[in-house]
Amino acid sequence: MKTTVATVSLLTLLAVACKPSEAPPEAAADVAIAQQLAAAALTEAAAQEAAELVRSLSLVAGPRLAGSAGDARAVAWAEAKLRELGFENVRAEPVTVPHWERGAESGEILTPYPQPLHLTALGGSVATPPGGLVAEVLRVASLDELLALPADAARGRIVFVDRVMERKRDGSGYGPVVAARGRGASEAAKRGAVGFVMRSAATGNHRFPHTGAMRYEEGVPKIPAAALAVPDADLLADAIALGKPVSMRLTLETRWLPDAMSANVIGEIRGRERPDEIVLLGAHLDSWDLGTGALDDGAGVAIVISAARQVAALPQRPRRTIRVVLFANEEFGLSGGREYARVHADELDRHVLATEADFGDGKVWRFESKVAPEALAKMDRLATLLAPLGITVGSDPAGGGADLGPLAVGRVPLVDLSQDGTTYFDYHHTADDTFDKIDPASLAQNVAAYAITAWFAAEDPEGFGRAPGE
Amino acid sequence: MKTTVATVSLLTLLAVACKPSEAPPEAAADVAIAQQLAAAALTEAAAQEAAELVRSLSLVAGPRLAGSAGDARAVAWAEAKLRELGFENVRAEPVTVPHWERGAESGEILTPYPQPLHLTALGGSVATPPGGLVAEVLRVASLDELLALPADAARGRIVFVDRVMERKRDGSGYGPVVAARGRGASEAAKRGAVGFVMRSAATGNHRFPHTGAMRYEEGVPKIPAAALAVPDADLLADAIALGKPVSMRLTLETRWLPDAMSANVIGEIRGRERPDEIVLLGAHLDSWDLGTGALDDGAGVAIVISAARQVAALPQRPRRTIRVVLFANEEFGLSGGREYARVHADELDRHVLATEADFGDGKVWRFESKVAPEALAKMDRLATLLAPLGITVGSDPAGGGADLGPLAVGRVPLVDLSQDGTTYFDYHHTADDTFDKIDPASLAQNVAAYAITAWFAAEDPEGFGRAPGE
Repeated sequence: MKTTVATVSLLTLLAVACKPSEAPPEAAADVAIAQQLAAAALTEAAAQEAAELVRSLSLVAGPRLAGSAGDARAVAWAEAKLRELGFENVRAEPVTVPHWERGAESGEILTPYPQPLHLTALGGSVATPPGGLVAEVLRVASLDELLALPADAARGRIVFVDRVMERKRDGSGYGPVVAARGRGASEAAKRGAVGFVMRSAATGNHRFPHTGAMRYEEGVPKIPAAALAVPDADLLADAIALGKPVSMRLTLETRWLPDAMSANVIGEIRGRERPDEIVLLGAHLDSWDLGTGALDDGAGVAIVISAARQVAALPQRPRRTIRVVLFANEEFGLSGGREYARVHADELDRHVLATEADFGDGKVWRFESKVAPEALAKMDRLATLLAPLGITVGSDPAGGGADLGPLAVGRVPLVDLSQDGTTYFDYHHTADDTFDKIDPASLAQNVAAYAITAWFAAEDPEGFGRAPGE
Repeated sequence: MKTTVATVSLLTLLAVACKPSEAPPEAAADVAIAQQLAAAALTEAAAQEAAELVRSLSLVAGPRLAGSAGDARAVAWAEAKLRELGFENVRAEPVTVPHWERGAESGEILTPYPQPLHLTALGGSVATPPGGLVAEVLRVASLDELLALPADAARGRIVFVDRVMERKRDGSGYGPVVAARGRGASEAAKRGAVGFVMRSAATGNHRFPHTGAMRYEEGVPKIPAAALAVPDADLLADAIALGKPVSMRLTLETRWLPDAMSANVIGEIRGRERPDEIVLLGAHLDSWDLGTGALDDGAGVAIVISAARQVAALPQRPRRTIRVVLFANEEFGLSGGREYARVHADELDRHVLATEADFGDGKVWRFESKVAPEALAKMDRLATLLAPLGITVGSDPAGGGADLGPLAVGRVPLVDLSQDGTTYFDYHHTADDTFDKIDPASLAQNVAAYAITAWFAAEDPEGFGRAPGE
C-alpha cells in the first residue's frame, strides 16, 4: 500500500486526538474489541505467559538449525504446545531441508603478532583443509572495493571485507553489509582468493561472530568463508594498519549431510462462518545453531501463538480461520515457506491476509500493508485501531516477511507490523541470542498488535481483495 | 584515612563553591599546576594518545596470562614503550610466575534437553578426564548453601553455585560472589562432588563466561572447576527447575607447566631534589587469557604511563621520583607485587606514596587515602585539587590495589582513586575485554587524576609519614 502523506497525517491526527470513546458510532464495535484485545495482551500475566513460550522453546529445543536434533525437538515442541493451548487442526506438514553442520572452528592472527580471532563459519561454507588454511590477509573496505579489484589481485590471499554496519530502527543498515555475506566468497575466489572473512553483519561491539547464509556461484571455486566478531575485525584491521604483512589461520570443520526432514507446524483458530478462509500468522521455528534462537525467532513464535490465543479468548470467534504457521528452515533457504506455498497452492486465493513476526521482540512502531486498492480504506481503519499502541503508518507497501515471499504467486494481501530493530543486530545469528534478552512488556505490545490485526482481518466482511502484482 | 563527615562537607563545598581563582593565596601555585595537568590530560589529542597505548598493548601482546608468549611480548612492549616515551631507568625486573594453560574446554547439558553450555575453566583448575566428566548437577543458591550441605550430599555430582552478582558503582557486588570462585571447588569436593561450576562472577547478561583464579584446599581432592556464562547459568537453572534430573558434561583440558619467567617493568621520571624518594604509580601488565586485557589492565597501564608523562611535561620536574611499575602476574597470584616488595624492601621507607590503577577505564569518582594522621590535612588539600574532576572524598582508608598489598610491610602511604565500576564486571576476565570497550574521554579523566596525585605527592616538601598499621 502506498499511503499518501495526507492519509498519514490524518491517521496521525486520529491517533493523537481521538480517544477510542470519541470514535464515530459505526466504529464503536471494532474499537471496543481492539481495546479488549490490547488490554488482555498487555497484562503482566499475559506478558509472562508469552515470554514463557520463548523460554520453553529456547530450553527444550535450544539451537535448532534445519535438520539438527534441536530442529526435530522444536517440531515436537510446537505440535505439543499448540495442542496444549487449544489450537485446532494441529499438524506438522513435512518439509525437506538441507542439513549442514558447523563443527569445530577457530581462527588466529599468526604474524606479526599472534592472537586468537573469534570467528564463525558462514552457513553453507565448505571446510578448510585439515589443520586450517594459512594465508596473508587482503583487506578491502567493502564488497564494492572487492568487485573493483582486477583479476588475480587476491591470488593466494584470504580476502577480508571490513564494512561497518549502521544501527537503524528499521534494520536498514543490514542490506548494505549482508550482500558481502552472500556473494563475497565467490567474488573473492574469482580474484584468486583461497579464503574469505568478513566483519560480521552486526551492530554493537560484543565479541560474538554473527553467522548467516552464504552461497557459492556455480563454476567458481568454493573457498571457506567466515564472519569475524566486531572486535576481531578491529584487531585484524589494526594489525593490517601497522603496515606489515598480516597472515592468519582459518580452520573450519563444516560438513554437508544428506537432506533431512523437518516440518511446518500449523495450528488454527477455526472461523465461525467461513472457516476455509485464512488469516495467516507466521513465524519460523528453526534458528541458527549458535544461540538458542530466543529473539530469532522464538519471539515471533510466541507473538503469533499468543496473538491467536487472545483472539480465541474473545466471546465470539471471528468469521474466518486464523492459522498460525511455524515455518521450517527460514534461515538456511526458506524451505518451509516454499513448501507451504506449494502444498497450499489451491487455497492461496482463500488466504485473506498474511503477516509474519521475525525481527526479535522490539515494539511494533510502524504499520504497512499491501492489499487491493479498493481495500486501502480498511487498512487505514486497521491502522487507527493500532495507533493507541504507538504504531504509525509507513509509506511503503508491506513486504510480508521472508517466509511469505512464496505467497506472492497467490497475490496474498500482506501486512507488516515493523518491530523496533535498534538492538536486534547486536544479537542476530550469534550465541548471545538467548532468553534473557527477551523483554516481556515489549513482547506483549507485539502480541496486542498481531491480535488486533488478526481479529480485524478475520472478521472483516469482504476481505482485502488481491495484492497488486510487482 | 578516616575523613570525618565535616571534612567531606567542607571539601564538597570547596569543590562546588571555589573557582580555582578564588582559592586562598598560599594555594594558588598548586591549583594552577593541577589545572595545567588536567587541561593537558583532557585534550582530545592526549586522550587519543592514552587510548592508543591500550590499543597497542592489546594488539601487540594480546592475551598475556603469566608465563605465556603474550606475557613475554607484553614485557618487551612495555620496556620499549617506556624508553620510547622518555622514561628513565627503564628495566625489567625478573619475576618467577606460575604457568597454567587453559587448552580446549566445553560443556553441555545432556539430559533432559541437550544443548551446549558456554563455560570456561577457573584459573588453576585441573583437567577433566579425557572425553569429559559426566554427572548429574546439584544446584545450590550460594556458597553458604553449599557450606550448609551435609557430608556426602554432593556425592558423584557436579555442584552448581548459582548466585547472581549485583551491579554497583564501587564493584562491591563482586566480593559476595567471588568467594565461591576461590573456595567452591574444594568445598564441593569435601561433600563428595566430582566437579564444580558456578554462575560467573559477572554483571550483565552477555554470553561470556568470566574466568578468574581459584585455589584448592590442601588434603581435599582436586576437582575440575568452571564458570558458566550468565545466560548458561540461566539455562541450567531453568532446566533444573523443570524438576527432572539434569546431567551435564564438562570437558577441560587445562594443564600446569613449569614455572616461567616474567618481569615487573619499571620506568621513572627522576626527581629534581630527592630522586631516591619514590611516588609509585602501579598497574599490571599481565591479563587473563580470554580477552586482550584492554580494560584489565591495559587501561591502568595507559593511565599510569600517561599520568607520569603529563608530570614530566611540566616546566619543572617535581622534587621526588615518579616510578611507574607495571607488575607481572597480578591475576594469577600477585607474583609481581610480592617480588617488588621483596626486591625493593630496602627502599620501601622511601616510598612516599603509592597508588594503582586496576579497575578499567571508568571515571574516578572517589578519593581515599591511608597516610600518617599528621598528613591528613595534606590529603584534604589533594582532594581539593581533584574535586574539579568530579571526584569526591570517601570515608574509608585506601586499600591501594592488589599489587600494593605487599608494600604494607613498609607501611607505604596509599591513595585510592576509585574508578566507576558500574559496567566493569560486564567484561571482567572475559573474551569481550577488548580495545573497542575503551572510552578515551574517560581514560583521560583518569590520567588527569593520577597526574595531579603523582605531582602533588612528588612535590610535597615533607611527605605523608607512614601509613597506620592494621
